[in-house]
Amino acid sequence: MSYPKILLSHGSGGRLTHALIQDIFVRRFKNPILGELSDSARLDGLPKTIAFTCDAFVVSPIFFSGGDIGKLAVCGTINDLVMQGAVPEYLSLALIIEEGLEYKVLESIADSISRTARLARVLIVTGDTKVVEKNAADKVFITTSGIGRIMKGRHLSVKNIEPGDKIIVTGDIACHGLAVLSGRKDLNLGFTIKSDCAFLHTLLIPVLEKYSAIKFMRDPTRGGLATTLNEVAEAGGLGITIEEGHIPLAANARAACELLGIDPLYIACEGRAIMVVEKDKASDILSILRRHPLGRNARIIGSVTKGLRAKVILNTRLGTRRIVDMLTSEPLPRIC
Amino acid sequence: MSYPKILLSHGSGGRLTHALIQDIFVRRFKNPILGELSDSARLDGLPKTIAFTCDAFVVSPIFFSGGDIGKLAVCGTINDLVMQGAVPEYLSLALIIEEGLEYKVLESIADSISRTARLARVLIVTGDTKVVEKNAADKVFITTSGIGRIMKGRHLSVKNIEPGDKIIVTGDIACHGLAVLSGRKDLNLGFTIKSDCAFLHTLLIPVLEKYSAIKFMRDPTRGGLATTLNEVAEAGGLGITIEEGHIPLAANARAACELLGIDPLYIACEGRAIMVVEKDKASDILSILRRHPLGRNARIIGSVTKGLRAKVILNTRLGTRRIVDMLTSEPLPRIC
Repeated sequence: MSYPKILLSHGSGGRLTHALIQDIFVRRFKNPILGELSDSARLDGLPKTIAFTCDAFVVSPIFFSGGDIGKLAVCGTINDLVMQGAVPEYLSLALIIEEGLEYKVLESIADSISRTARLARVLIVTGDTKVVEKNAADKVFITTSGIGRIMKGRHLSVKNIEPGDKIIVTGDIACHGLAVLSGRKDLNLGFTIKSDCAFLHTLLIPVLEKYSAIKFMRDPTRGGLATTLNEVAEAGGLGITIEEGHIPLAANARAACELLGIDPLYIACEGRAIMVVEKDKASDILSILRRHPLGRNARIIGSVTKGLRAKVILNTRLGTRRIVDMLTSEPLPRIC
Repeated sequence: MSYPKILLSHGSGGRLTHALIQDIFVRRFKNPILGELSDSARLDGLPKTIAFTCDAFVVSPIFFSGGDIGKLAVCGTINDLVMQGAVPEYLSLALIIEEGLEYKVLESIADSISRTARLARVLIVTGDTKVVEKNAADKVFITTSGIGRIMKGRHLSVKNIEPGDKIIVTGDIACHGLAVLSGRKDLNLGFTIKSDCAFLHTLLIPVLEKYSAIKFMRDPTRGGLATTLNEVAEAGGLGITIEEGHIPLAANARAACELLGIDPLYIACEGRAIMVVEKDKASDILSILRRHPLGRNARIIGSVTKGLRAKVILNTRLGTRRIVDMLTSEPLPRIC
């Protein structure tokens, strides 16, 4: 039985919660592990070394061009596993729902989660649903955790990085952040930018399997490419130099950034990876990436340097050099 | 560097987010796995069979007698693992924070999380922090996921349950829900009830190791004892009969329930378990439980019956019998 809107009683833990969980989730996500509906999922046959991650998603609006909070929650968590060299296997799903949310909105998000998980071949095996009063949350927040199998003998780590290594970005930057921004009522750009929101294991795991030359990966989400490169530089105690002219950026994204006066280097992606790879293998890896739809616009954008400890330097199109710092303010709240 | 209040920029993913994560979390939770600050935690040496769970905590108020949202988040997730017969090992922690929350409130919650995790000997290995605008969340919500090692050869399941099995509850019921309720401004009871919020592996794992006669466990959180027993009855297709006079309920909790006109059978516990055990071993198990501070008031409250498919029957103190249904309304929103 469905209701037009979510009631506080849907979060009571009682009869209505059970009905909601069956109707919205179990029916769509069905698999034998989730079907047990125990307090925790029993997972069997995992290797000794696994990856474990979690992310809270508070994106606003919850539907945007190229995705929604459900697709984002699945892809974001998968990608955090993939960055560790792990094949994603299992997800958990915790929802905090605002009383009064339309039932069909929740159904639509659950459809999206279900579709994305099925395409990605991951199982949703455990979950939790809470409902809070009107104005105690904004529509719906989703926290996903994930477990993946780390490829045998593989240890991607910032510690592997050395001067001379090349930096690859797997596609156009800034689309996700701009798609969410342009979906907000107060920012009507006049044209559509589609989020890059996507799961990346289908692109990256085959390349990882083939090339031990891939040393480290991270996805440039909140804070964008600039912040992620700074994190890498700081964690590794190394310098990074990137070429502005090599950074893939679609024409409409460039236009939007100019219109809004924001720097694309700081805008979140949700379907891109930054890879640090051995110099000699960089162009081989690039050419394989470019054969996959998600890697078509992959580029080598720079390299790791010594003598520039923990700094990221941008060689601009104009031939000047500038330091690219980590994001310090918050131009784009609730982008993911 | 700390700020008096949480700013939206603390959730930007940039410089302030890094500072917050270091200052609030990494410093307190420090361990080598978390210290890597990768996109996901690399966990090594786990057995082939693990338990995986997640819970969202939205309790209001965030501090209550006997606990706070941080302690609750750690204990609640540990207990969901323990109910599966798993020794808790690793937790993830995702926070959604309302802009303007006092920094010292967050510190105090992080202290509580850190203290509880240390006492419980679990490691917090990965996390996420998001900040939303004022009035887009209520102070702070915490979602914890957990991984535990399932005891070798052990498979607690509702499928193990047979008529004749005994039902044990490990302690006084209803304290958590009443503690939270009495902490709300509009419900001044005039006396204090302390939440039973506690992690249960120290009580239960040794007993599980000793007794294969323990067939199934579940913690009666949202919806209370009545709802949990109904879940067990429905999942197992069996009847359950409980004796009102045997259900442990402290005098102050009984008084509070009478004052508020609510049924203690529906009030959440956060440090109790319901165990279904073989009849012949029930009193041995009970006597071991009662030697532990968390099991001092454990009681055998009833038994599994046939011929009463999926119904829970209460033999009242007055000598009458009534059907105890699952919770159908929501008397106590945001109890966990």
